[in-house]
Amino acid sequence: MGLVDSDDIAAAAVRIEPYVLRTPLLDSERLSDELGCRVLVKAENLQHTGSFKPRGACNALLSWREQGELPERVVSFSAGNHAAAVAFAGRQLGVTVTVSMPESAQESKVDNVRHYGGEVVPTTDLMGTCEELARKYDCPALYPFDLPEVMAGQGTIGREILADVEPDLVLVPVGGGGLVGGIATAIKAAAPDCRVVGVEPALSNAVEQALAAGEVVRLPHGVPTIADGLAAPFAGEHTLAQVRRYVDDVVSVAEDDIAAAWPDMITATKLLLEPSAVVGLAALRAGAVTAPRGGTVVLVASGGNAAPPRD
Amino acid sequence: MGLVDSDDIAAAAVRIEPYVLRTPLLDSERLSDELGCRVLVKAENLQHTGSFKPRGACNALLSWREQGELPERVVSFSAGNHAAAVAFAGRQLGVTVTVSMPESAQESKVDNVRHYGGEVVPTTDLMGTCEELARKYDCPALYPFDLPEVMAGQGTIGREILADVEPDLVLVPVGGGGLVGGIATAIKAAAPDCRVVGVEPALSNAVEQALAAGEVVRLPHGVPTIADGLAAPFAGEHTLAQVRRYVDDVVSVAEDDIAAAWPDMITATKLLLEPSAVVGLAALRAGAVTAPRGGTVVLVASGGNAAPPRD
Repeated sequence: MGLVDSDDIAAAAVRIEPYVLRTPLLDSERLSDELGCRVLVKAENLQHTGSFKPRGACNALLSWREQGELPERVVSFSAGNHAAAVAFAGRQLGVTVTVSMPESAQESKVDNVRHYGGEVVPTTDLMGTCEELARKYDCPALYPFDLPEVMAGQGTIGREILADVEPDLVLVPVGGGGLVGGIATAIKAAAPDCRVVGVEPALSNAVEQALAAGEVVRLPHGVPTIADGLAAPFAGEHTLAQVRRYVDDVVSVAEDDIAAAWPDMITATKLLLEPSAVVGLAALRAGAVTAPRGGTVVLVASGGNAAPPRD
Repeated sequence: MGLVDSDDIAAAAVRIEPYVLRTPLLDSERLSDELGCRVLVKAENLQHTGSFKPRGACNALLSWREQGELPERVVSFSAGNHAAAVAFAGRQLGVTVTVSMPESAQESKVDNVRHYGGEVVPTTDLMGTCEELARKYDCPALYPFDLPEVMAGQGTIGREILADVEPDLVLVPVGGGGLVGGIATAIKAAAPDCRVVGVEPALSNAVEQALAAGEVVRLPHGVPTIADGLAAPFAGEHTLAQVRRYVDDVVSVAEDDIAAAWPDMITATKLLLEPSAVVGLAALRAGAVTAPRGGTVVLVASGGNAAPPRD
């Protein structure tokens, strides 16, 4: 099986440039003070649809179009952010989008998909329903992580980080492994000494389990974690291979640590973030990863689709 | 009485550049869709201390230092954001800071002042206590808006906006009038056709009342508005003169409109904003200001010192 390489990511960057935002990399004075190193936040919550996901979804559809294989419809499955991204990409390119989402999905995430014209099918069996929809419509699935085109799209974040700063450590939230696989590939090609570490919720650690088992592990359905965007039911074959090759380490963090880091990182950065986006800070605080004293750390803030504060 | 001019603002920009951030001007796809024009948000919530206030506070202290008049201590009064900004500026320049703040001030705002080493004196009489402190310590007051140096500092936002975009309309939150006075002065010097409109909470409309009365009006103490950062007890003489000369209009918005706009603007922009920062959107929605169809509108998001969402 071929791995994604840095040329694939460079090609993705050119392909998706008209469709996605180059998000800011923001210095956090508060987090730098706390952690004793320079901390920057890659603010993918400011990306279209409120998460990094349009990078991969746009790259997949645009790649298929280049090959003369753009379908009229695609299906997918998602906790919400990938669903909105596929709907966003589909609207740009005239592709109808239907996605299966958990029945427990946050209302704001369902609304977000519909805002971009996507159709949502609630289910307790994400993958099964997605496969059913693909058969029903006789159309391809634009999977959330286990596609080389998706990984290459997410990897464009790594290129952008290196264009702005020379980090010693990059911490990346991990669900199915597409984001960390793509980013690590881009970073290691140009900055081999920079450590890239993935962070999973301990309650939904499909990648950690698969790395230990040496094969894809399917987690029980519906594992609840506050970091709902990282609740992938399994790590894919493509992403696992990519993670094994390029990622230095994958660690996991407890729910309580994520829950405590969530409001603190919002207060420190003044960005609306979803819990999935703060697992890197949680890992540093819990000692699961050590910040290089006086070094430069990038936290990839993967998304901001959370309910806002109210009076 | 001499007005602040665009040269004062250009000088302030040079003076404060090492101390403050050049905040991003972010396109909001969601707000643009809703309002039928291009909407950008000047994200001053990402400024040091979480609001625009360090621009004015730094310019005042640095100006005084240039004149050989840097005091060892300053006092001030503030709902919180100016207090944190004076503490921030004082820490940079070795000046001790004591501020009076409302007893009802949000805990996060009090914490923010202390984080930067400022001393907080809770009071029900902001101005009276500030004057007492100045007498007690025999030191100058770094007032939150009615100082030319403060207005010139806040005006640097106007220069930054024009460096990024050519707006047809700029909407600015109004408390005492220093922010809108400064921004309008910078904008009108380079883009005289751009409308600059100030927006006040109807419950705390010191500038609107002063413009109508033709003189400074003192509001009753402790007028409660959700937009606590805009609850200035009066509009100053300097700011009023500046507003009369450069600002196209000052309008007010009802509490309910601010309360409704608050979570919506956070959701749309993915920025943590305080209620004061959303009065421009509230004014557009309420029809108090008309967005130029197909034009370009900048909303100045003045600060983000609000409690984050919790699970």
